[in-house]
Amino acid sequence: MDFSEWFSNILEMAGIYDVRYPIKGCGVYLPYGFKIRKYTFEILRELLDKTGHEETLFPLLIPETLLAKEGEHIKGFEDEVYWVTHGGKTPLDVKLALRPTSETAIYYMLKLWVKVHTDLPIKIYQIVNTFRYETKHTRPLIRLREIMTFKEAHTAHATKEEAEEQVREAIEIYKKFFDTLAIPYLIIKRPEWDKFPGADYTIAFDTIFPDGRAIQIGTVHNLGQHFSKTFEIEFETPTGDKDYVYQTCYGISDRAIASIIAIHGDERGLVLPPIVAPIQIVIIPLIFKGKKEMVEEKAKEIAERLKSYRVHIDDRDIRPGKKYYDWEIKGVPLRIEIGPKDIENKKITLVRRDTLEKIQIDEDKLEEEISKILKDIYENIKRRAKERFESFITITNNLDEAKNILEDKKGIVLIPFSEDIYKEDIEDKVEAKVLGETEYKGDKYIAIAKTY
Amino acid sequence: MDFSEWFSNILEMAGIYDVRYPIKGCGVYLPYGFKIRKYTFEILRELLDKTGHEETLFPLLIPETLLAKEGEHIKGFEDEVYWVTHGGKTPLDVKLALRPTSETAIYYMLKLWVKVHTDLPIKIYQIVNTFRYETKHTRPLIRLREIMTFKEAHTAHATKEEAEEQVREAIEIYKKFFDTLAIPYLIIKRPEWDKFPGADYTIAFDTIFPDGRAIQIGTVHNLGQHFSKTFEIEFETPTGDKDYVYQTCYGISDRAIASIIAIHGDERGLVLPPIVAPIQIVIIPLIFKGKKEMVEEKAKEIAERLKSYRVHIDDRDIRPGKKYYDWEIKGVPLRIEIGPKDIENKKITLVRRDTLEKIQIDEDKLEEEISKILKDIYENIKRRAKERFESFITITNNLDEAKNILEDKKGIVLIPFSEDIYKEDIEDKVEAKVLGETEYKGDKYIAIAKTY
Repeated sequence: MDFSEWFSNILEMAGIYDVRYPIKGCGVYLPYGFKIRKYTFEILRELLDKTGHEETLFPLLIPETLLAKEGEHIKGFEDEVYWVTHGGKTPLDVKLALRPTSETAIYYMLKLWVKVHTDLPIKIYQIVNTFRYETKHTRPLIRLREIMTFKEAHTAHATKEEAEEQVREAIEIYKKFFDTLAIPYLIIKRPEWDKFPGADYTIAFDTIFPDGRAIQIGTVHNLGQHFSKTFEIEFETPTGDKDYVYQTCYGISDRAIASIIAIHGDERGLVLPPIVAPIQIVIIPLIFKGKKEMVEEKAKEIAERLKSYRVHIDDRDIRPGKKYYDWEIKGVPLRIEIGPKDIENKKITLVRRDTLEKIQIDEDKLEEEISKILKDIYENIKRRAKERFESFITITNNLDEAKNILEDKKGIVLIPFSEDIYKEDIEDKVEAKVLGETEYKGDKYIAIAKTY
Repeated sequence: MDFSEWFSNILEMAGIYDVRYPIKGCGVYLPYGFKIRKYTFEILRELLDKTGHEETLFPLLIPETLLAKEGEHIKGFEDEVYWVTHGGKTPLDVKLALRPTSETAIYYMLKLWVKVHTDLPIKIYQIVNTFRYETKHTRPLIRLREIMTFKEAHTAHATKEEAEEQVREAIEIYKKFFDTLAIPYLIIKRPEWDKFPGADYTIAFDTIFPDGRAIQIGTVHNLGQHFSKTFEIEFETPTGDKDYVYQTCYGISDRAIASIIAIHGDERGLVLPPIVAPIQIVIIPLIFKGKKEMVEEKAKEIAERLKSYRVHIDDRDIRPGKKYYDWEIKGVPLRIEIGPKDIENKKITLVRRDTLEKIQIDEDKLEEEISKILKDIYENIKRRAKERFESFITITNNLDEAKNILEDKKGIVLIPFSEDIYKEDIEDKVEAKVLGETEYKGDKYIAIAKTY
């Protein structure tokens, strides 16, 4: 089965996202998928809150006049913006855009909020839906017309240096976020011709999906004073002069969820990092004649002892085999099977989702062992993901070879950095996309890949 | 100052919601307001999760063909729907509505999910933005064009009785929710001519704002089979027959936030129920010469002892009086003032936001006393709100008197129920709105009010 088909199947079978909504590129987060999304973005929220970012909520609608204010920015988005033109049967005086991203909405307000240097820095974020009228092939959670989850952070600073420092902080936050999800990445500075419309420069996080295609999963932009000059976000400096604020913004979308699914999953279904698993431990009582009550009691007792985790007892009246199958699809990290023989021997049988390994532990060491094994599951899927990621990276300075690799096994090809090569026209030569410049094991490269 | 002006001032001064966004009826949740919103809807989320509701996320956009499917429903909304007509420069084949509410989007999917009675009940909800092109005067958090927060729950059942039971469960959930927020209400069955478009009947929660106007703060609808027949949500019953599902839906919006502000606030600013206060206890170190370090140490120690609460030490280099003023505006339930004399005497001075009362307690009883006082603050603001609410309720069977009261002190007028009176034309006679039929202290009334 090819990756794309596997991915679609998993979304459906695990109950993550239903693509059957009657608008192309729009779908429904189902309860199980919604929970994964919730736990995932909770990690990001905590990282942002801890570093002094404050959560806010801005309107979805942006007047055309506002969106068009920054010339480069609107040029980057104008073909992809959805336009609201009517309220009821009344044509609107000014067309309203569904935000493709919120710079213009937020920076209009920043002008009102910033007067003097003591108002700075401002570090805010929101988690919202955004819209792109994609003309490319849409893909669930990867290329959506309604991006259901976009965490966008926006900051304003008194100096260029502080904005630079903020870029570094944002990168650190994203590193921690993807590390926590066990998702490997390269940090790549996008080429001039592919930076965010209106940015000084763009730093991206790229990972690689099992089909060898690279995918952008996070971006950090240093906006310099592009927007602040356009939006007149001016402030009084400590010396009484006037200056425009220095800005950064950085975003992460539903692709974080797509990556968890794509990178850790296997032929049996999802493999979830424990931290985002809606159910971390599922308990399956193995019912034998005359021992029903004993087994059910023990299942409850074990669940109670593990209540600091998200535990679920599956007491459905179906075969255990069917239950194993269901929870494997859903990627529950750890399964506990409770049967009369184990109870007698004061043993507990565990099955790890990542390795499918069966482990027997002493009942009295339950809490300690579970904690150790869950940590090990995380470490193992992280190592595994990293290994595959590395196996997808090829270093070469031969463009023909690069082209062949990108055609065949794909992945990311790294070409030792040289100004001569680093031009848009190599995209034609290698029939792939230049991701930009990156450091890999201490050396500087141009990264090239087939992308999503 | 009149209520409307007070309300606008508070939104700005407490940093809740900025109305200066350049689209009428659209504004920005500021960090402090966002936190109140977060804690408030967290209560609702918990109540829903505990009763077997599952959170989901549906698309914002609804094709015209889908929205128009249920005749009564579209009639109720067609003048208020925002329409997306273009993607980039391309006119869309089918116009897309910004959801005014999500029945049609969700029920399209329900048809795909429901096959047999064992698929039922389905109880889902989402917390999303919705849109109404309001022609009436907009008001922040009360009548918005972008309703930034709409919790809508949707359920489907195998029998009419189960749907009835679900209506009762929803009412219980909403009672707990508003009780937790110390917001008083009447539960009122809306008249036929004012029910939700497409419902069998509508039950509303109405409260009264300090200006005497009634405001709808929650609704529960029994949809019967109106939508399920239109959307063909058919299932196989236990006896092998076919039937359409019985549906309910119920919603709560940003008006919950508006109510917290309006009902508990006073001339100094917000008065927040502790459970939704972003800061529950603020500690103000009173710095005297030579005692700075001692006071700061003690402040930290106290904060540490109270870390199960949301505590903030205000160590800004400004006068304490200015700090008191700021935190009173923001409605922080409890203030602790730490000075050298108290430290010496092993005392702690507290000031309650609700009564502005100063209380001295023994330092060693800190945790115990704080817990008691916070509970008492909740009880007190609840009692106070209830008293004012009751003072706004007038019982009369004289329509002229009703009209005068509704003109003068306003509030809700209750007229002993009679089929003869209960008709739409009394709205003209009393120049107010019929809220519907309600039970009050054991008797049945027609409730009438000037409304938001």
